Amino acid sequence: MSICLTDRLKQSIMLGDGAMGTMLSEGMKEATCPEAINMTNEKLVENIHQQYVKAGSHMIQTNSFGGTRLKLDSYGLGDQVVAFNVKAASIARKVAGDKVLVAGNIGPTGKLMEPMGSLTFEEAVLTFNEQAKALVEGGCDLFLIETMADLQEAKAAVIGAKMAADLPVICTMTFDIQERTLAGADPETVVTVLEAMEVDVVGANCGVGPDLMISIIKRMRQVSDVPLMAQANAGLPRLEGSNTIYDMTPDRMGAYVSSLVSTGASVLGGCCGTTPEHIKVFSKELKMLRSNQPKPILFSKLAGKDQTVYVGCGYQTPMIGENINPTSRKNLAEAFRTLNPKLAVEEAKAQIEAGASIIDINTGASGVDQEVMMPLAIQAVQKVVRAPISIDSSDPKVIEAGLRAVQGKPLLNSTTAKPETLEQMVKLAKKYGASLLCLTLDSKGIPESAEERFKIAEIMVNYAIQNGMNIRDIYVDPLTLTAGAQQRLVMESIKAVQLIKERLGVRTVLGVSNISHGLPKRSGLTASFLAMSLGAGLDMPIINPREPLFRLMISGSDVLTGKDHNAKRYLEENTLLGNEGVKNHQEITDEKAKRENLSVDL
Amino acid sequence: MSICLTDRLKQSIMLGDGAMGTMLSEGMKEATCPEAINMTNEKLVENIHQQYVKAGSHMIQTNSFGGTRLKLDSYGLGDQVVAFNVKAASIARKVAGDKVLVAGNIGPTGKLMEPMGSLTFEEAVLTFNEQAKALVEGGCDLFLIETMADLQEAKAAVIGAKMAADLPVICTMTFDIQERTLAGADPETVVTVLEAMEVDVVGANCGVGPDLMISIIKRMRQVSDVPLMAQANAGLPRLEGSNTIYDMTPDRMGAYVSSLVSTGASVLGGCCGTTPEHIKVFSKELKMLRSNQPKPILFSKLAGKDQTVYVGCGYQTPMIGENINPTSRKNLAEAFRTLNPKLAVEEAKAQIEAGASIIDINTGASGVDQEVMMPLAIQAVQKVVRAPISIDSSDPKVIEAGLRAVQGKPLLNSTTAKPETLEQMVKLAKKYGASLLCLTLDSKGIPESAEERFKIAEIMVNYAIQNGMNIRDIYVDPLTLTAGAQQRLVMESIKAVQLIKERLGVRTVLGVSNISHGLPKRSGLTASFLAMSLGAGLDMPIINPREPLFRLMISGSDVLTGKDHNAKRYLEENTLLGNEGVKNHQEITDEKAKRENLSVDL
Ligand SMILES: [Zn+2]
Ligand SMILES: [Zn+2]
Ligand SMILES: [Zn+2]
Repeated sequence: MSICLTDRLKQSIMLGDGAMGTMLSEGMKEATCPEAINMTNEKLVENIHQQYVKAGSHMIQTNSFGGTRLKLDSYGLGDQVVAFNVKAASIARKVAGDKVLVAGNIGPTGKLMEPMGSLTFEEAVLTFNEQAKALVEGGCDLFLIETMADLQEAKAAVIGAKMAADLPVICTMTFDIQERTLAGADPETVVTVLEAMEVDVVGANCGVGPDLMISIIKRMRQVSDVPLMAQANAGLPRLEGSNTIYDMTPDRMGAYVSSLVSTGASVLGGCCGTTPEHIKVFSKELKMLRSNQPKPILFSKLAGKDQTVYVGCGYQTPMIGENINPTSRKNLAEAFRTLNPKLAVEEAKAQIEAGASIIDINTGASGVDQEVMMPLAIQAVQKVVRAPISIDSSDPKVIEAGLRAVQGKPLLNSTTAKPETLEQMVKLAKKYGASLLCLTLDSKGIPESAEERFKIAEIMVNYAIQNGMNIRDIYVDPLTLTAGAQQRLVMESIKAVQLIKERLGVRTVLGVSNISHGLPKRSGLTASFLAMSLGAGLDMPIINPREPLFRLMISGSDVLTGKDHNAKRYLEENTLLGNEGVKNHQEITDEKAKRENLSVDL
Repeated sequence: MSICLTDRLKQSIMLGDGAMGTMLSEGMKEATCPEAINMTNEKLVENIHQQYVKAGSHMIQTNSFGGTRLKLDSYGLGDQVVAFNVKAASIARKVAGDKVLVAGNIGPTGKLMEPMGSLTFEEAVLTFNEQAKALVEGGCDLFLIETMADLQEAKAAVIGAKMAADLPVICTMTFDIQERTLAGADPETVVTVLEAMEVDVVGANCGVGPDLMISIIKRMRQVSDVPLMAQANAGLPRLEGSNTIYDMTPDRMGAYVSSLVSTGASVLGGCCGTTPEHIKVFSKELKMLRSNQPKPILFSKLAGKDQTVYVGCGYQTPMIGENINPTSRKNLAEAFRTLNPKLAVEEAKAQIEAGASIIDINTGASGVDQEVMMPLAIQAVQKVVRAPISIDSSDPKVIEAGLRAVQGKPLLNSTTAKPETLEQMVKLAKKYGASLLCLTLDSKGIPESAEERFKIAEIMVNYAIQNGMNIRDIYVDPLTLTAGAQQRLVMESIKAVQLIKERLGVRTVLGVSNISHGLPKRSGLTASFLAMSLGAGLDMPIINPREPLFRLMISGSDVLTGKDHNAKRYLEENTLLGNEGVKNHQEITDEKAKRENLSVDL
């Protein structure tokens, strides 16, 4: 049975099922491994599935929430992983027939991932893949990864599932009362990272209850046009004697259905405490509702471990901090050779304090084992920095090592147009949910003219889109040559930014500092080039954020290009220019002239 | 006889005649008024003309060099002005027939013009006009204004001649050994100002001799594509007893002819000491030569009293200093009400020291008699400032008062697209040899979109060209709205700069400071807008040159746009950024960070 979940969700709202665990716990004693019941009491599981199908579920979830080897190990049942999952899927399949979808349910391993715990990304991928393959063997139609608390683990689960079969993937995470996952990610970041992983439906499950669920769905919908799923608990559980009680009756929960749909959820279900009765009410409510199709989102997004940066469409211009690059910094190169990330961490913090939105990490220097150092640097930096990471290397192996370690939705910096490189980098970006930075550079080098650079960009962008990348995740850097060595080509970069923006509609990036490479008095040239580039439509400069003049140019340009409405940020944040009130020009000039006499240099 | 001198000069080189005064002085006693000889000894004059025609002259000059009323007054013969000039022209006409052209010769009045002397511009125009009308009455084919020592007087003579008849005008000035006129103008400025007056042939006469003449013609040709005339003396005169002796024999002078032609002269003749023998040799030399057609000049020019500023085609971006404007300066308004130019002069000097290339003068404030104050301010400023002037008013009367007073080739700032205004301003620009700044503003105001502003620009530029203006003398200002009041329109100005440059090929100007009008912390916004505009192709910003950040942006942008080859000026002149040698980026950054801790503000 092959389904296109996304197409189906365009037509109608889909109703999942309610709790399996709650139902099972009613039918059995405590402390049993729930997945073992597939083997020991198949009828119980079958019966629950049947109740949900009868209640109106279009999709039922296999009894395999704790079915990874790592989780089963806690019951000493790790070696049953294939048997349990095959069975779980086949029970559901039998009940579902060909009218109802079977979602292979995948839950957390119960282990903390690196760098907080000891579970490596690769181990996590393998354990999820093992479970997913068994679920496919048992006959599931899609995967439903749920109750995830850590985006890293969710990413590993998605990759593991996708490696098992080309089936749709739903992934929902759990949020606390602060609307953050246990690991701290907000709903925007969750949806940003998961949609980048090419998850078909993103959402939230479990947690506090339907009120909070509406708020989370709303936040996800504001920044994403991916289909959303909501599976709330029947309120927060409380203990009454030895019984766990959920206060939300089917009717009380049913009252939230229309709000959830209008807010943007197009897949509904229930989590802890919900029963076939709840699903029956939901089904009735849904008959009167149409799915609410999202408006296309035109801006781009990158994410750090728990927060998201928006690019384009009037959002503040993000600065990519360029300083973690050992090319011209001997001390950084030396630190990287000894696998010491301390200097990089300090530099990252300083750049963030100076206003960087994204931290570029380049570990390239002779004698550095980059496949080790890159993930080490990324993990160390992400311990203290919430901003998205730009993984800066031309070596696919180093990039992949970084992509496995990085949290959030990073920028893959970068690929050239060389076919084999482009192919590898697009695959990596898609697999790990990264945005891709394309340099207008092919085997013949950097073309001189803006038009030629545009042509390379066009080839790269078309290739990436044809191979499944979202246009909003493709960035082009038409490359800055140095004014010192190639003065006559300087403006070609700026023209290329304009052409690429206008004709291809992708985001643009420029490493602007290179303009003044090798020249003294660099910052004046770089600042001029920066403002010109922003005027031509540059979305993200790669720059030294610690230079106040550059920040001034960016914050000034944001006012001019309408990215800082009413100059609010410019006026509030800009401390470089003193704090004159609204005065006439001459008075300000006179005052500035006075002040300038006091200071020697910029 | 109607001639198109310019067309004729495209075909062939034209040969004028030699000295009249030298020949006359041989035939008569000293201290006579030379123009009186037309009446007293017609045959003598006729005979000289005949000798020149026989020697091969294509054009002979009337014996009317001192024929203005003001000059004749020194002999007490002012009331003979009409008689002398009519006669001078009719003698030449009789000899010339219809094969040879008669050039109505006009020389200096012998009086110093304002502000050095007491002769007003209007008086000068009138006296030249009176002579020119008489020469036309006597039958001249064109005017030849020569031996001018002061560009202001030359301008008055050109206007007076053009008011007399729609005939071609040649104007040649005299240069000293420093290659400057008596009043100090260099050859570039002379050709710039006179070609802007729509003089058909510009050149040099009299002076040191043919060597210097070649150098002057070469300098003029480098910056102009107007036809050039060279009338050298036969060397410097020296006294031998009571005789004035010129050392250059016809053959020695003839040896320079081919160099003069290859350098760019297409009208040749001789001045003091040259005789029909000289012209005969010239004629022989010319038979073997073809005229050397100039390459079109693509840059634009503005001139101050004695020096020229180049705009476009890779020349340094000129700053128009905006500070002489009483709009928001109470003390300046007060000074102008009492007709006191002192503050304006001080401001002009300060702006020049800060690097301004052009000084804008606006005298508009309530209670100011601008028709008096504007010329007063211009003259006072030009006493101390060599830069071109931008005459800033929307009132044609104030503009004309300024145009009469101003030295050099000013910018007429400005006209709107309102038909009556545009018509008047184009006429004034043409009459006084000014460049014209067109605001993209019509009776409906400033359009919002760049395309609409472009359309207004197109209408204005087409009108100006159709009415005889050179495209290189037309500047368009697509207007800067304030980011405070109209943030969403900010980038329209920059787009308009680009459209106007690309599609119309005219120079662009922007009053960039207005972008931050009414906002605090202005300079960051203005600097960003400035760099963006320069990146989009802006030729001349109107700005406060005393703000170092703006100068830094301009000098940086000049490197980026190729106007500062190898960043020579940027590195030499830019003192804002300290004097780091070529260091790696991080070291510079670290040093800058240290320094910034010492200074509070920009
Ligand atoms: Zn739950
Ligand atoms: Zn002479
Ligand atoms: Zn002469």
